[in-house]
Amino acid sequence: MVKLNKILKKGKAVFLAYDQGLEHGPIDFNDKNVDPNYIIEIAQKGKYNAVVFQKGIAEKYKQEIKKSKVPLIVKLNGKTNLFKGEPIARQLCTVDEAIKLGADAVGYTIYIGSDYEDEMMQEFSKIEREAHAKNIPVIAWIYPRGKSIKGKLKKELMAYAARIGLEIGADIIKIQYNGKIEDLKWAVKSAGKTKVVVAGGIKKGEKKLLKQVKEIMKAGCIGLAIGRNVWQNKKPLEITRKIEKIIWVGK
Amino acid sequence: MVKLNKILKKGKAVFLAYDQGLEHGPIDFNDKNVDPNYIIEIAQKGKYNAVVFQKGIAEKYKQEIKKSKVPLIVKLNGKTNLFKGEPIARQLCTVDEAIKLGADAVGYTIYIGSDYEDEMMQEFSKIEREAHAKNIPVIAWIYPRGKSIKGKLKKELMAYAARIGLEIGADIIKIQYNGKIEDLKWAVKSAGKTKVVVAGGIKKGEKKLLKQVKEIMKAGCIGLAIGRNVWQNKKPLEITRKIEKIIWVGK
Amino acid sequence: MVKLNKILKKGKAVFLAYDQGLEHGPIDFNDKNVDPNYIIEIAQKGKYNAVVFQKGIAEKYKQEIKKSKVPLIVKLNGKTNLFKGEPIARQLCTVDEAIKLGADAVGYTIYIGSDYEDEMMQEFSKIEREAHAKNIPVIAWIYPRGKSIKGKLKKELMAYAARIGLEIGADIIKIQYNGKIEDLKWAVKSAGKTKVVVAGGIKKGEKKLLKQVKEIMKAGCIGLAIGRNVWQNKKPLEITRKIEKIIWVGK
Amino acid sequence: MVKLNKILKKGKAVFLAYDQGLEHGPIDFNDKNVDPNYIIEIAQKGKYNAVVFQKGIAEKYKQEIKKSKVPLIVKLNGKTNLFKGEPIARQLCTVDEAIKLGADAVGYTIYIGSDYEDEMMQEFSKIEREAHAKNIPVIAWIYPRGKSIKGKLKKELMAYAARIGLEIGADIIKIQYNGKIEDLKWAVKSAGKTKVVVAGGIKKGEKKLLKQVKEIMKAGCIGLAIGRNVWQNKKPLEITRKIEKIIWVGK
Amino acid sequence: MVKLNKILKKGKAVFLAYDQGLEHGPIDFNDKNVDPNYIIEIAQKGKYNAVVFQKGIAEKYKQEIKKSKVPLIVKLNGKTNLFKGEPIARQLCTVDEAIKLGADAVGYTIYIGSDYEDEMMQEFSKIEREAHAKNIPVIAWIYPRGKSIKGKLKKELMAYAARIGLEIGADIIKIQYNGKIEDLKWAVKSAGKTKVVVAGGIKKGEKKLLKQVKEIMKAGCIGLAIGRNVWQNKKPLEITRKIEKIIWVGK
Repeated sequence: MVKLNKILKKGKAVFLAYDQGLEHGPIDFNDKNVDPNYIIEIAQKGKYNAVVFQKGIAEKYKQEIKKSKVPLIVKLNGKTNLFKGEPIARQLCTVDEAIKLGADAVGYTIYIGSDYEDEMMQEFSKIEREAHAKNIPVIAWIYPRGKSIKGKLKKELMAYAARIGLEIGADIIKIQYNGKIEDLKWAVKSAGKTKVVVAGGIKKGEKKLLKQVKEIMKAGCIGLAIGRNVWQNKKPLEITRKIEKIIWVGK
Repeated sequence: MVKLNKILKKGKAVFLAYDQGLEHGPIDFNDKNVDPNYIIEIAQKGKYNAVVFQKGIAEKYKQEIKKSKVPLIVKLNGKTNLFKGEPIARQLCTVDEAIKLGADAVGYTIYIGSDYEDEMMQEFSKIEREAHAKNIPVIAWIYPRGKSIKGKLKKELMAYAARIGLEIGADIIKIQYNGKIEDLKWAVKSAGKTKVVVAGGIKKGEKKLLKQVKEIMKAGCIGLAIGRNVWQNKKPLEITRKIEKIIWVGK
Repeated sequence: MVKLNKILKKGKAVFLAYDQGLEHGPIDFNDKNVDPNYIIEIAQKGKYNAVVFQKGIAEKYKQEIKKSKVPLIVKLNGKTNLFKGEPIARQLCTVDEAIKLGADAVGYTIYIGSDYEDEMMQEFSKIEREAHAKNIPVIAWIYPRGKSIKGKLKKELMAYAARIGLEIGADIIKIQYNGKIEDLKWAVKSAGKTKVVVAGGIKKGEKKLLKQVKEIMKAGCIGLAIGRNVWQNKKPLEITRKIEKIIWVGK
Repeated sequence: MVKLNKILKKGKAVFLAYDQGLEHGPIDFNDKNVDPNYIIEIAQKGKYNAVVFQKGIAEKYKQEIKKSKVPLIVKLNGKTNLFKGEPIARQLCTVDEAIKLGADAVGYTIYIGSDYEDEMMQEFSKIEREAHAKNIPVIAWIYPRGKSIKGKLKKELMAYAARIGLEIGADIIKIQYNGKIEDLKWAVKSAGKTKVVVAGGIKKGEKKLLKQVKEIMKAGCIGLAIGRNVWQNKKPLEITRKIEKIIWVGK
Repeated sequence: MVKLNKILKKGKAVFLAYDQGLEHGPIDFNDKNVDPNYIIEIAQKGKYNAVVFQKGIAEKYKQEIKKSKVPLIVKLNGKTNLFKGEPIARQLCTVDEAIKLGADAVGYTIYIGSDYEDEMMQEFSKIEREAHAKNIPVIAWIYPRGKSIKGKLKKELMAYAARIGLEIGADIIKIQYNGKIEDLKWAVKSAGKTKVVVAGGIKKGEKKLLKQVKEIMKAGCIGLAIGRNVWQNKKPLEITRKIEKIIWVGK
């Protein structure tokens, strides 16, 4: 099995996610956080276990990332939120390119339930093959999406997403939390030996966020991949310290 | 012709199927059987001729599987049950990957009658070519599905599924039993030199299950690929002994 | 030009077609003819110029076919009759595989007029290239199908099918006979140097069948590819003798 | 730039087109012209600058073509007129195959405006790359087709077709003439250094045909690709002489 | 990072765009500007930093372009404006071909929001990989198009387009200006280290054009890619001088 030590610390992790520029556009940004350097600085000072970038940022800010010594996760696929049909995000960066850019792990999103689920599953499987052959961990973003999932229970979808991560060979999966700790425990259990991190999602109040972080860790996840809740926060290092305290100190 | 001796005993077999995590999600599982190790233990103690896993489980639990000495069948394709359109399950694991994972045979599902029948048939044909070149037996899961098969007779579909297995070069085919022994005999005959195993399907009462096992063997099948009826059973080894008695002792 | 001497005798031929198991299912079969060995026996005793199998049968019954010394035509594509949409049959066996299985010629079906005509034409063109590079004759089954051909004249479709065989480089084409000898003569003429065989089609009375065989030969075809009319006949060798008498003796 | 001297004489040309067997079927033919040898004879005696065949005819009549010493243009794609949806003609012959068949140039049809315009443009671009790498001229048949072009002005479509030929790198383009000389001049100008030939189209009266030939040459085209107007003519060599007189003598 | 010095001067640039022949057809042209040589002459005399051509023109006018010493940008994809469905422009020229044609940079258009966004994003990603491996800069034309973008705010779309350029690794992006300088500043900021040029668009009055050029430079763009506003102008070199004065002198 591929070693995760470069992106985990004592088996746990907080990843700073910054793929929103492609997924949502600059509407998520302000004058500060629109700049990748601001993110790299937060990641470095906040001692994040890794930062998540698309290949363009990983390439154009290669020197700055290298200098920061923050481990790098390159997202290999992505899409805009403009197209209104069934979601599909195709591979935009190869495993080899990611390695050249200094990646310590690679990520790929699968929209389960989408009309294109089969194509993303297959593309993921090739990436997983290539990455594991080169000892690079693979993180799967697994999100239920598309018209087929309407009316399905969130609890079941969350556990299903987690299980798929195990079945298809992801080392870590990133899923969305439905807010019920018992359901998340079941999802973590369903993932077996595949590690689970939770997506931070849209910005929420500090109290609610920290409560969720506690639940996530109690449920058996190894941590989170957080973005907007940190870099949209006026004091990103302060909220980082609070999150990390829960993860590393346990409270 | 490829030799089947690694996954058959005296020409017969019971395979422990555990690809439901991807196909149906954790809704099929409880706290015990959600864990692949529980399945490996049943397979080992129950002396199953092989256990069926997706590549993720085969990889993450490689040591445990190896230690159990239970032969391994790796399913090479799969899909979730979320997408509501015409069924398509694409290849997620190559024959070479499966061999590296220790596979003694590989499996692939074809949904005949689906809009994507042609693509699965073609993908299967490539797998068959590669597997046979490396002396690996190929098991085809052949299930009639999709809007085109509505109104077709189950008897005819069952025999058609079996025949397709022969025509496209499967070594073993897994089909669903319609419950009529005469129809199954015809399906077995239609399969010619291709061996037939029957899918266990959803959990049923012990009496009904064992009656079916008897019919399956009488019809000329070489055995079954059973999952939920075993690992959802509170006493999986007990039901296993009863099934195996019918298969090996004949009653 | 590729030599046809292995599958023709004095420039003429009767091929025993047995790809119905995939195309129609076992509904075409009875207890006897469901068994490929029964077909091989008819082919051998009836001195057929070749027998037509899908790759699965060619592989599983390789020894029996070899022993019979009947030349082998491997059909390289095929589909079930379950899917109700526009017809598409994709390649399931490569030219190299067919050669390894002992093929003296390969066959491929094109459904002209189908939404997928372009894909089958292109796939055929690759097969033709590979086969001719290895001196293997290529037989094209060319059948007008799909919603676009509704209302078209059978005479014109038959001649068009024949002509396409020439234009795309088939050595022999198999077409369906509309029952009018003058139309068939025109189709044969349209095919130029490409040889024409006629498909036997569904079982018909002996008198009607033999009358058609005479017309087919008079029209300039080189023979037929016949299946159900022989192996569904209670006395397959008797009907074979009558057919062959017309072909070889001329009456 | 690729040299065109093998298929042009003093920078001008008349090509004898005979791809109608695939494009329209034998309905265009009679007892004489259904035979490719009749066409080769006309091409030879009529001193055509080249004859246009699909690969099947180029292969089956290779000796006859070679003996005639008429230069050969192999059409690399084609389709039937049976399918009623948006037009698509895929590549059926590679540049290498065409060269082996003795081709002095290759041709490819693009239906601009079709739903599949993008696929044909891309396939053409690969052919152009391969052909130019081997010094083989590429002729693009560019025809506006499909539901998107309804209501567009013929003048603009003709000039657009010509311009596309230049933009995508064709050496010669074959377009359809709208009958207005000023419009054709503009199309020729739009094509820049790419040469323009006009398609003969359906058979028309001699007077009308010769009038058009004059206009075509006056407009700056290098000649025509003519088929039915020649080989459907009872005296093909006579009409050929008249056409060639206009082209070479100028009246 | 790839060096841009061949197509920039002091970090700024004006590119003469001439891909309209494929994108719109000759309707954009008159008797003068229909001729690529006229464009090459303007580019040379006007000291443009590069001229933008499709591969056909780059190939047929290779000597003239070389002689002019104007740097060359080859557009690698393109489409006509005939097809009325969701926009898709596929790759028609490889990076290697462009290099052989003397390209100093390559360009590719992505229609974000289109049904085919995913395919163009993926094709772009391969081009970027190949071009950067050979030290060739990549310019992305990023235009929001298709039915999904209806009703979206132009400001947000402009910034989104710019950001995508950064995320997917373009060196320079060409976007359309909505006419509001504050919005363009935000777009430039969103593009990070990726340079921004603005498309000239349809011909407008000189006063309006020069006002826009000033705004574009004030907003932080590195320049423009201009076509119709120059070569449809009766005095192309005069307007060029005025534009360049704003860019290089700053007023």
